[in-house]
Amino acid sequence: MSDYVLDEVTDAEIDRQAAIYGPLAQSVRELIDAALRTEMDGDVVTRATEEIRGLTATLQEKQMPGSFGVRWSASGTKRDWGNAVLGLRNAVAPPVVLNVEPDGRVVADFSLGAAYEGPAGLTHGGVTALILDNVLGAAAEAGGSPGMTGTLTIRYRRPTPLGEMLHAEAKTDRVEGVKTFVRGTISDAGGVCVEAEGVFILPRWARAALAAATPGGIS
Amino acid sequence: MSDYVLDEVTDAEIDRQAAIYGPLAQSVRELIDAALRTEMDGDVVTRATEEIRGLTATLQEKQMPGSFGVRWSASGTKRDWGNAVLGLRNAVAPPVVLNVEPDGRVVADFSLGAAYEGPAGLTHGGVTALILDNVLGAAAEAGGSPGMTGTLTIRYRRPTPLGEMLHAEAKTDRVEGVKTFVRGTISDAGGVCVEAEGVFILPRWARAALAAATPGGIS
Repeated sequence: MSDYVLDEVTDAEIDRQAAIYGPLAQSVRELIDAALRTEMDGDVVTRATEEIRGLTATLQEKQMPGSFGVRWSASGTKRDWGNAVLGLRNAVAPPVVLNVEPDGRVVADFSLGAAYEGPAGLTHGGVTALILDNVLGAAAEAGGSPGMTGTLTIRYRRPTPLGEMLHAEAKTDRVEGVKTFVRGTISDAGGVCVEAEGVFILPRWARAALAAATPGGIS
Repeated sequence: MSDYVLDEVTDAEIDRQAAIYGPLAQSVRELIDAALRTEMDGDVVTRATEEIRGLTATLQEKQMPGSFGVRWSASGTKRDWGNAVLGLRNAVAPPVVLNVEPDGRVVADFSLGAAYEGPAGLTHGGVTALILDNVLGAAAEAGGSPGMTGTLTIRYRRPTPLGEMLHAEAKTDRVEGVKTFVRGTISDAGGVCVEAEGVFILPRWARAALAAATPGGIS
């Protein structure tokens, strides 16, 4: 059952798991790219497909029933390892690693490979929307007013390249009651590619669940 | 070099490639889910990681230099096999399969697994934005006015579940010069979860590239 969970896992055990499952997900990320770009053909590909199915069956011998969820340890360490943007264990995630600056900005530097393509040779516009949704949401949280996305507005200024270093950043602009207004961008070396504005709202059910699961409260 | 390409590949050869590379990507999708949800531990995981690296190396022995790009065959068959939402060869893509209805609506039915999680147990809001960007873009194209996303506005009405059937649809609302206005939604059995409005614009460079690559023009 995936949910917001407060568990008894120690930081040492979290480190141990990260050292096992992080490399597993990273190896799958590299396989995603290879499977997309390979020009090997015929039996080689068919054999690889069979071997991948075998590895999947092995990993499935014991597995959690639903999605990973979001877990906090007693020490306050958050594990969003299944998250589609950030997830240490999620090979769909680039993953983007967020840093919170002293001034409340959330920043991330990353590059996107062939698996994030939309227009030929360019990053999918929806992928930049996906990443910005997460970076803006983290900035709402960093600003002390976490929430789920209410509205997200994305403006595409220039094409976002694949395979080059990108920089995302976002900061809470203002809070009005339960609404947190956040602005952010994704840039390449040439400047801003995509701008975003998001309104984040914490629904009552999420506020209750977070308060129950988070040591010291949700802020 | 990934680009908009018109190639000489026959439909029979396209079918042959789809029958080899489609199952490969599907096996990687299942591995993504298994790697995220496995509770196998220790040596079993470490060994699987090594075997995945070996398979990646085999597939990399011969590969295209960049991303897949968007390719058209002489018969007019479009292959966007690397696309992050639709791509037959892209394990990051669910994949979403689009259908164009006689009235110009673009519709798709799909479900999203654990790799698309955002809030615990729910679909990542950015993932629904990613999919809507693509579905709306396809509706602009289906309406005869393709373009790249200029602005995308997403409104989140209700949480989008993981693991249940979802329905996306979009339709061109109006065309004003080079701007195509499109509206769409993602729904579950209980109704609309997410609404989107997009403005799609065809940049001059894309218009020239598409016109050169597409038999019979871009519409």
